Amino acid sequence: MIEIVHENSIPVSFGDCDPAGIVYYPNHFRWFDATFHALLYRYGGGHAAICDGLGSIGLGLIDVGATFRSPAANGDRLDLVVRIVEWNARTFRLAYRGVIGERLVVEGFELRGVFIREGEGLRAGAVAPLRAVIEAGAGRARS
Amino acid sequence: MIEIVHENSIPVSFGDCDPAGIVYYPNHFRWFDATFHALLYRYGGGHAAICDGLGSIGLGLIDVGATFRSPAANGDRLDLVVRIVEWNARTFRLAYRGVIGERLVVEGFELRGVFIREGEGLRAGAVAPLRAVIEAGAGRARS
Amino acid sequence: MIEIVHENSIPVSFGDCDPAGIVYYPNHFRWFDATFHALLYRYGGGHAAICDGLGSIGLGLIDVGATFRSPAANGDRLDLVVRIVEWNARTFRLAYRGVIGERLVVEGFELRGVFIREGEGLRAGAVAPLRAVIEAGAGRARS
Amino acid sequence: MIEIVHENSIPVSFGDCDPAGIVYYPNHFRWFDATFHALLYRYGGGHAAICDGLGSIGLGLIDVGATFRSPAANGDRLDLVVRIVEWNARTFRLAYRGVIGERLVVEGFELRGVFIREGEGLRAGAVAPLRAVIEAGAGRARS
Repeated sequence: MIEIVHENSIPVSFGDCDPAGIVYYPNHFRWFDATFHALLYRYGGGHAAICDGLGSIGLGLIDVGATFRSPAANGDRLDLVVRIVEWNARTFRLAYRGVIGERLVVEGFELRGVFIREGEGLRAGAVAPLRAVIEAGAGRARS
Repeated sequence: MIEIVHENSIPVSFGDCDPAGIVYYPNHFRWFDATFHALLYRYGGGHAAICDGLGSIGLGLIDVGATFRSPAANGDRLDLVVRIVEWNARTFRLAYRGVIGERLVVEGFELRGVFIREGEGLRAGAVAPLRAVIEAGAGRARS
Repeated sequence: MIEIVHENSIPVSFGDCDPAGIVYYPNHFRWFDATFHALLYRYGGGHAAICDGLGSIGLGLIDVGATFRSPAANGDRLDLVVRIVEWNARTFRLAYRGVIGERLVVEGFELRGVFIREGEGLRAGAVAPLRAVIEAGAGRARS
Repeated sequence: MIEIVHENSIPVSFGDCDPAGIVYYPNHFRWFDATFHALLYRYGGGHAAICDGLGSIGLGLIDVGATFRSPAANGDRLDLVVRIVEWNARTFRLAYRGVIGERLVVEGFELRGVFIREGEGLRAGAVAPLRAVIEAGAGRARS
């Protein structure tokens, strides 16, 4: 499997934190999502270009989880790595790992699909065309 | 086990949605968290009063997850129910279920602890005193 | 001028607040925007229906300001009123006023336009068709 | 007057944007605030250290405004500059200017105070001690 990985360095700010002085947890998911979108720019020209090519409205979320190992606060720099760890028929899986220096802060995952509009609802389309786009981008990056 | 449950009705707005026109997923966790805090007001006078009583800096998150079943968009009303489903020695578990009308939108959970400051770090304190506060509140509500 | 007004009651939660324990100020603008969008539902069937009718991509922001008179915190209920106070050729102006009980918390305004896509950019289209839609909605509400 | 200035480069992501595909405007204020807090690290060791030294709960907001000149979207890099432009007795004023490449996106300001807790409320304390801390930081940076 071709390695698809991206690292994002996030400056944690005052406004990201709650009255206990540590990161308000939904912000960790904003950073997951932003890191995934940065990966899409790196390997495929960004979400809009990829979705136009696939006839998709978005590489949307099906399932997500995270475990918090230690707190992050104002002034910290969170180094967050995303990796595509599974390509399935109708889903793909991303693994996340965020550290501050050597200290582990958060581990998590997202299971996403290639959402296609169908009537009023959405369905998960085939993932193979997305994989082809991303792996072609990885090939160009190496050569 | 005494039932501890709270329902929150959330008006989904334009700004909660992303360029695909559906809810940007970290907002679902903002709503989980807000519903938990509303439960704390109902059963224990709110987070600040409870934490002061317990010597805790916060009823913080250890583990979280969610599964998205169908999209939510601007103008929808999301009815979100939280329930305390486990009281453990050092953690407690909340289950969430959000619907729009009859349609299931999201299911999830949070595993939280009673965080105590210890030097530079945090540790998870005993949960029994929190349980006593919340169940006493449930008793008062029924009587 | 026909009165166009809407009131929104916002439960302020823990996660809306910063390490000083008071509302992180960008959230006040989330609430301004959500209250405006609720007004659009009341008077015109919502942003999407209105914009479809006008050939607009959005009733976007041109200018905004707010003055903070006293703090809001977890557990407060912020009653926020929006009012359309000016209809101009290419802009319209909204006034906001938020109170907790009798106490004034925030006053502000937004100047918005009816944005039309033009090539790569945006331009502010005529406001008269929007005014007609909203005032017709006000007429139906009264009758 | 000693120049106090800081520049922040912000990667605009998918989740920062609304269904019209452009930045949901409260995020511009998140970026204003984050850029101010980065300035505090540069010149004074960060908000917490400064406030501890001043006996303040926070360098809070009194008045804010912004004008939007052109849109920002997913994949853009917003270069945002903050500058302290006025030191008054009980307030200080920050000016913001954000560009994408050569294109002007946003201009704005914040009027802030050194908030001191007083009974149940807050009052704006003297600004001179804050100015001394920040200007001493600027002196160290130059020498």
